[in-house]
Amino acid sequence: MSGAIEPLRDRLAELEDLRHAAALLSWDQQTMMPVRGAHARAEALAAIERISHEGFIAPETGELLHTAAEELDPGDPDGDDARLVEVVTRRWEKARRVPSDLAMEIARAAAIGHQAWVEARRDSDFNAFAPYLEHNLSLARDYVACFDDFDCAYDVLLDDYEPEMKTAEVSRLFTELRTQLVPLIAQVAPLPVDDSPVNGSFPLDGQRELVAQVLALMGFEEAGWRLDDTAHPFAVRIGEGDVRITTRWSESYLPMSLYSVMHECGHGLYEDGISRSLRRTPLARACSLGLHESQSRLWENMVGRGRPFCGVLAPLIAKQFGGSEADLDADTLFRAVNIVRPSLIRVEADEATYALHIVLRFELEQDLIEGRLETADLPHEWDSRVHKYLGLEVPNDALGVLQDVHWSGGMIGYFPTYALGNLIAAQLWQRAATDIGELDEQLERGDLSPLREWLREHVHRFGAKFTATDLLARTVGGPIEVTPFIDYLTRKLSDVYGVELSSVPEVGSPSATQP
Amino acid sequence: MSGAIEPLRDRLAELEDLRHAAALLSWDQQTMMPVRGAHARAEALAAIERISHEGFIAPETGELLHTAAEELDPGDPDGDDARLVEVVTRRWEKARRVPSDLAMEIARAAAIGHQAWVEARRDSDFNAFAPYLEHNLSLARDYVACFDDFDCAYDVLLDDYEPEMKTAEVSRLFTELRTQLVPLIAQVAPLPVDDSPVNGSFPLDGQRELVAQVLALMGFEEAGWRLDDTAHPFAVRIGEGDVRITTRWSESYLPMSLYSVMHECGHGLYEDGISRSLRRTPLARACSLGLHESQSRLWENMVGRGRPFCGVLAPLIAKQFGGSEADLDADTLFRAVNIVRPSLIRVEADEATYALHIVLRFELEQDLIEGRLETADLPHEWDSRVHKYLGLEVPNDALGVLQDVHWSGGMIGYFPTYALGNLIAAQLWQRAATDIGELDEQLERGDLSPLREWLREHVHRFGAKFTATDLLARTVGGPIEVTPFIDYLTRKLSDVYGVELSSVPEVGSPSATQP
Repeated sequence: MSGAIEPLRDRLAELEDLRHAAALLSWDQQTMMPVRGAHARAEALAAIERISHEGFIAPETGELLHTAAEELDPGDPDGDDARLVEVVTRRWEKARRVPSDLAMEIARAAAIGHQAWVEARRDSDFNAFAPYLEHNLSLARDYVACFDDFDCAYDVLLDDYEPEMKTAEVSRLFTELRTQLVPLIAQVAPLPVDDSPVNGSFPLDGQRELVAQVLALMGFEEAGWRLDDTAHPFAVRIGEGDVRITTRWSESYLPMSLYSVMHECGHGLYEDGISRSLRRTPLARACSLGLHESQSRLWENMVGRGRPFCGVLAPLIAKQFGGSEADLDADTLFRAVNIVRPSLIRVEADEATYALHIVLRFELEQDLIEGRLETADLPHEWDSRVHKYLGLEVPNDALGVLQDVHWSGGMIGYFPTYALGNLIAAQLWQRAATDIGELDEQLERGDLSPLREWLREHVHRFGAKFTATDLLARTVGGPIEVTPFIDYLTRKLSDVYGVELSSVPEVGSPSATQP
Repeated sequence: MSGAIEPLRDRLAELEDLRHAAALLSWDQQTMMPVRGAHARAEALAAIERISHEGFIAPETGELLHTAAEELDPGDPDGDDARLVEVVTRRWEKARRVPSDLAMEIARAAAIGHQAWVEARRDSDFNAFAPYLEHNLSLARDYVACFDDFDCAYDVLLDDYEPEMKTAEVSRLFTELRTQLVPLIAQVAPLPVDDSPVNGSFPLDGQRELVAQVLALMGFEEAGWRLDDTAHPFAVRIGEGDVRITTRWSESYLPMSLYSVMHECGHGLYEDGISRSLRRTPLARACSLGLHESQSRLWENMVGRGRPFCGVLAPLIAKQFGGSEADLDADTLFRAVNIVRPSLIRVEADEATYALHIVLRFELEQDLIEGRLETADLPHEWDSRVHKYLGLEVPNDALGVLQDVHWSGGMIGYFPTYALGNLIAAQLWQRAATDIGELDEQLERGDLSPLREWLREHVHRFGAKFTATDLLARTVGGPIEVTPFIDYLTRKLSDVYGVELSSVPEVGSPSATQP
């Protein structure tokens, strides 16, 4: 072993331990903490962030990185050590430009903002939340101002969630995506589908049993996982052997819990599948949030809402809830959970309209950060874009601008990764089906382990060793693309609606005259 | 404001934030964490401890303390600032002798040892736990070796839980206590009492409702408290507005949950009652574990097992469980929950035999630390002292040497504080009754707020500003004494058993010829 790598690993391990503590403080705040504990919790999160940030940006870290880089085996550029040094050096170069006090204040404001958002959303009162959002935006601008080597301010923020991705590239992908989706949605949204099988009365005890059965098939194990209730579902790995997912429940709408746990378990499987050789290093995380979301969406939509696995779900649901649901068949379920219908809430959106929710947030965030939009004008602008993209009126802020947790926690630049995740999921899904061969047959039997192992082998185990783009190049042979997603969705919606749909020609392809 | 006090407070506040994180990590380990997360959790706790310890013992802390001491207002020796500087200086002088690596290893070993103990106790296998205990003992000896100004090794350990208390003083109190208790126990233990009213079938849902009603009377509020399940009940305040208590449940034995929640809520009320002016300082804690235990035992035993409040509990229990329990009356309950009967498990022991459990642990701990007893010989020595003090055979290690959590977490020197707590509780109870005047009548009505407010005013709000001895001097006018406890217990057991009991003359009093 070389001379600087071990001290570097020790130093980074302790910072990962602090991250472990911060992850638990945050999980607890969203699942367990009594409301009056919010102020002290914000202080604790801020302190951990300041200490972590100072420890990370210290010159000693840079010296260890520099020395370690010289000691690396040039014959093993993809080895854990080589990737650790490269990835951490990039992060260190970025982090050391940010003063500790700013990093601390961002963490404190996030924790306080979260609690303010919970109450504002409950009361559907944007004005109560506006000062916290304004403060978070101001801190985000201060953060951007720490850097000078970017094309646009949003690049700096986006890079924290999707390393090395550029705003311009996201814009290009989203334009193509929207161009393809709008006519697809227009073809199917007016068509009738019966969604009554998943709307009704589903006692929570039964839902908990159903969800436990589905999670067990996916790979959830009591010894290393938890499932808890929360307002805004999320997944987090606190540390090795400790993956926590969360959900919310609706007695009248079964998909809320069912697909949210499949989604979050997809995230959890990613984190749980990271190679143990990366334990207690900064590589023991997702490479990007886009790739993270590809895992959750793949399990939620391609598995959970796919026709083969509906053949497993339908009898489980029928058995659990009996009565009128007893005769639920797989085709009926498949159609009921894939209805395309513009709606107000992003996390409940179907696969086709989902991206439109993201596009409007992506645009609004850029406007807010660049100062083209005032916080006070945000609700109006939100409502008008919902009307423009989804054709809907927003009845109140809780169903509009206050619906998402992200801005309360200062997470600006995060939303685009959701839509990127959908694209990546389709690319991985296509490749997995080719590699595995009998994927549909396995899913029909409820045998999810070959898919899980394929993802572990080709995606999960690498953690943050590579960027999403590099990982995709290795796994599917190219960059993020729109076409596989549109192809997947067109085929699926053709089945759901029993019509022959066609996707419009690709933007930039020879037959398209207008972008 | 002076020049050093504010920077000192800032420095200590950040250390309190780390303590907040450590408290949550520990609470979570005992209530929520999946078992496979134990190793990573141990690392995280160790890292937080190392960082906290280094931050605390840094010369900068000493300089701030020194400068702040010179800036204090000599006319306000009991003010928050003056007490902060004095208490923290004492802790700093002690802590800075301990190397950070040792402090870290003690924290890591505690977390790992805890998990090993859980499994060893489950399997009743002392040998599986022995290496962890041996390691904890070895670390405790290393810790003691950091100091040279003590009368005996045990003083160093005891002082961490009961500041400024000496082993010799504890021995003196325990000798007197045992001398008084043994004949009292001998008088009542053979007498018959019917405990069938609290043994039976008590569905857990009903217990949860009962417990919620009792906690509400005590002052538990959803907005600032939690109650969770655990293997070994404890209470902790994570931070301001966030008090967490835990319990375990037995379907066949109602007192297990009922009195454990009253006990832990007593701890919680103490922490919740600490003055807000001490927030985010090291004074925002209990002054000693003996005083802490006085609060839990006062609520559990003097309130919860007292005749007046049994008049509130009996109808609540009868209403909740109906059936044969429906005719439970207050006198029957009072007798059933105060039976004196030597038993194997400390936390289920009655008020009279409880101290004997402590005495044997106090003796064994001293023998272990001084090297007079080998770890391997501990189970045999445990069993033989249980026979000597309680007249019982220990059937297995789970009901013997493995029953308590403390040694697994390296908490050696902690046990004596339990018995001290019983003594202090009786002293405070006597004073509270005198001050309040109508205490019994209030308890009979279920009006617990006057007592809670008295404790807040005379005990809770001071936090760690004073030692337990100093606080007692202010509140009851003297040091820890045995007599009030024996007087209280003699009166109570006379009522329970319907006989006229007499306490033996005090050790050292004129009529006693032998100590």
